[in-house]
Amino acid sequence: FEQFWNDIRNFSKTAIEMGRNDPRKIMHAIKMGLALSLVSLLIFWKEPFADVAQYSIWAVLTVIVMFEFSIGATFIKGFNRGLGTFGAAVLAFCFGELAILAGKLEKVVIVISIFLIASLSSYLKLYPTMAAYEYGYRVFSLTYCILMLAGNRTRSYTEAALTRLILIALGAVVCFLVNIFIYPIWAGEDLHRLVVKNFKDLAAALEGCVNGYLQCVEYERIPSKILTYQPSDDPLYSGYRSVVESTSREQTLLGFAIWEPPHGCYKKLDYPWRNYVKVSGALRHCAFMVMALHGCLLSEIQAPPEKRQAFCRELKRVGAEGAKVLHVLGSKIETMQKLNSDDILEQVHEAAQQLQKRIDQKSYLLVKSETWEIGNRSQEVADNENVPTENDDHQELHLVLKSLSETVLDPRSMPMLTSNLDTKDMTTYTLRKQVPWPSCFALDNESLIRKDEIKTYESASALSLATFASLLIEFVARLQNLVDSFEELSEKAEFKEVLAR
Amino acid sequence: FEQFWNDIRNFSKTAIEMGRNDPRKIMHAIKMGLALSLVSLLIFWKEPFADVAQYSIWAVLTVIVMFEFSIGATFIKGFNRGLGTFGAAVLAFCFGELAILAGKLEKVVIVISIFLIASLSSYLKLYPTMAAYEYGYRVFSLTYCILMLAGNRTRSYTEAALTRLILIALGAVVCFLVNIFIYPIWAGEDLHRLVVKNFKDLAAALEGCVNGYLQCVEYERIPSKILTYQPSDDPLYSGYRSVVESTSREQTLLGFAIWEPPHGCYKKLDYPWRNYVKVSGALRHCAFMVMALHGCLLSEIQAPPEKRQAFCRELKRVGAEGAKVLHVLGSKIETMQKLNSDDILEQVHEAAQQLQKRIDQKSYLLVKSETWEIGNRSQEVADNENVPTENDDHQELHLVLKSLSETVLDPRSMPMLTSNLDTKDMTTYTLRKQVPWPSCFALDNESLIRKDEIKTYESASALSLATFASLLIEFVARLQNLVDSFEELSEKAEFKEVLAR
Repeated sequence: FEQFWNDIRNFSKTAIEMGRNDPRKIMHAIKMGLALSLVSLLIFWKEPFADVAQYSIWAVLTVIVMFEFSIGATFIKGFNRGLGTFGAAVLAFCFGELAILAGKLEKVVIVISIFLIASLSSYLKLYPTMAAYEYGYRVFSLTYCILMLAGNRTRSYTEAALTRLILIALGAVVCFLVNIFIYPIWAGEDLHRLVVKNFKDLAAALEGCVNGYLQCVEYERIPSKILTYQPSDDPLYSGYRSVVESTSREQTLLGFAIWEPPHGCYKKLDYPWRNYVKVSGALRHCAFMVMALHGCLLSEIQAPPEKRQAFCRELKRVGAEGAKVLHVLGSKIETMQKLNSDDILEQVHEAAQQLQKRIDQKSYLLVKSETWEIGNRSQEVADNENVPTENDDHQELHLVLKSLSETVLDPRSMPMLTSNLDTKDMTTYTLRKQVPWPSCFALDNESLIRKDEIKTYESASALSLATFASLLIEFVARLQNLVDSFEELSEKAEFKEVLAR
Repeated sequence: FEQFWNDIRNFSKTAIEMGRNDPRKIMHAIKMGLALSLVSLLIFWKEPFADVAQYSIWAVLTVIVMFEFSIGATFIKGFNRGLGTFGAAVLAFCFGELAILAGKLEKVVIVISIFLIASLSSYLKLYPTMAAYEYGYRVFSLTYCILMLAGNRTRSYTEAALTRLILIALGAVVCFLVNIFIYPIWAGEDLHRLVVKNFKDLAAALEGCVNGYLQCVEYERIPSKILTYQPSDDPLYSGYRSVVESTSREQTLLGFAIWEPPHGCYKKLDYPWRNYVKVSGALRHCAFMVMALHGCLLSEIQAPPEKRQAFCRELKRVGAEGAKVLHVLGSKIETMQKLNSDDILEQVHEAAQQLQKRIDQKSYLLVKSETWEIGNRSQEVADNENVPTENDDHQELHLVLKSLSETVLDPRSMPMLTSNLDTKDMTTYTLRKQVPWPSCFALDNESLIRKDEIKTYESASALSLATFASLLIEFVARLQNLVDSFEELSEKAEFKEVLAR
């Protein structure tokens, strides 16, 4: 029982917290109560039309199903409701007349018409592009049934249809008035805010990834939630995940926003909401690279810390500059300003270039040169005639064995090796070099394949740093596309010009 | 007018096509019509309870809102409807008595109670974990209003409540009976099929990426839809995109599936539907790597074809084996069989290892060795004392310039260079080598930064191949996690054992 009491206390605490964080939710609840109370006053209606009180429930029903959080959503529902109701009324009128003409068969005609209408509307509801009108089809079926049933009972289809339509319209009007004129909540604003939040989240995730990589953050145990792409508390992961996952929320908000009339700072008719989603899509395209960067942190194949340090300054700078670009673009969108005339990407491109130069200079850190045919290397590269031949496999295999020992071993990733090597010593680089690899490896023995595998991953470790750098450069390359989308948005949405600093 | 006629023709054609592709949709429509016709028979009810016909509309309403495509969805809606209606009935009974006690103030009590109830329920509806019960809260408000209004009109709250509750229950029963006993449609089956489809899509995308990379498929113009992560026709892109995007659909289906009773081949009580989603999540974790691989195809930074050819056999084999693993796992899930005792990953691990060996042997293809301090290279690497010094920057810059010419230039990615170089010649490797780079580059002149940038990207091209290989190996490493999730699923869901081949 105490448990139950605690649950209730927690629930109310969170509920109050929710209201404090987003007062719009409280306002929405109050508005809903107000709209419903207004409509319920109808039951006290006396004269001149006595029917009004009896059928007032249709106005109530309309308010309950139409009243949505944002104005755009209310408009869509209203449109659905209106179209569905009107279509149903016309059909009901036709079939009603037909039923009266049918005389004795009236009931049969009614039931068959209901069957046909319900089947057809629930079939078309499944039509791919009709998903947004799902509610409209339901209203259509419902209204049709109501009118046929009421008409059949009172024997006057037209009057039944008219009373109800008027009450439904009344409910819709109350909905619109309350929703628009009392503390309006706009889906467009939400969309705008979501896009800005995505920029900030991704900037934080990017910087976090680069810094984490340089500080050699390792996951003791990778949360299985990350491995199965479920929500997790990991700050880096949740940062880019929210950007990747916001697709459907953006689409929903976009669907609402395009129904909203010009308002506030979105004064233009036919406001380019789609471009906000497009910018967010371009941002997502960048986010996939951050995701891949995080993949390098999660990977079992890890580059040795000393090697990472060799590129530390450059990597850090690219990360910082990239995050800065995201921050600037995010706040430009937030404040709805155009970019200055100077190139926002200048710094980050320079940083990427420094990193690339560094890689060129130090690329021997990224590969294991012992395995090469060293003598004629330079010529081969220059001539580009170096398509490999397969005849010296045996010798090369020997060299591979040697090169394996250059990489840092990650003890947790290879439980199999513990019998051969002392895991405690494995993190120190020089010690490991002395440990001989089992010679059976070169024999390609099937039963030893497992150990073989493990070594494969080890030897990938040196290249993992190259991959990280390469992905970071690709991230920078994708920023251009992001800036282009932003500029398209800022043109179409007529963002403010700002004077150069 | 002809346009309009064509539109209608196309629409009907697609609609008929939809039914042919998925006959369940037709069955669903017919079932809906049947349920609604059954309920509408109530209006012809005469004796013993004359009220039934008048209030039959509540049964109709229930059928219309509760009838969903899958059984699980119908159950959830039914549960929502039941709980909402029951809660509202209890509250309406209490407030009804209170209103009668209030005497003259009856109307005030009613309106205030409606305001409170509506506000509270639409506030709690916004509570994060309550999203699934959104419909329940609406039903709750609606029922409460109906009962208060009807009770107020007829002066007997209890009777009003009871008649309506019985009719609503009747509607729900008709819904359940028709939905379960006539051609049942299970959300669980859909989920199962979706997971299998994800495996096949990803296998195709993986193989497509690797083959495309080796055939040096280049995007003449990257579809802007890919750059902004919108749906596109590109087969590779849509393959992994559908895997990545299926998250929300899986969650929806899971929400329905766990409500469904044991049926067909899902006989176990408390069937582990969650594990299907988990396997799909692990698959998604692999899909992100395929996405990154595709990023290499899209990238402006491209490795030269000759170098790709050097790793062709190995890359191809890893791609093929990886796709095979996905295919095998997919069809194991489809036929609900456990894995054989032999290691499914054996082949793909061996292939990855071959690739890694190849990289070790040929890693000089991936870097530009001219830029190194060649003399003492081997010693430095061996001692690992080679943390770089900054004093020889000038000399290194010169070498960078030299190394840049090794990379293949992609003319479309650098419009700026056309004035200096003849673009027609740029695709031939040897010709380009003779073109001198502008010497101003080394001066780090700010105004020339744009050209500088471009060169940065060029020089990344050699590493792009290393990145591709490295991502492919990471993909293989992630397969282990996928196999683990599959095995967990196959245990929990009691998949069939199969005898070894």
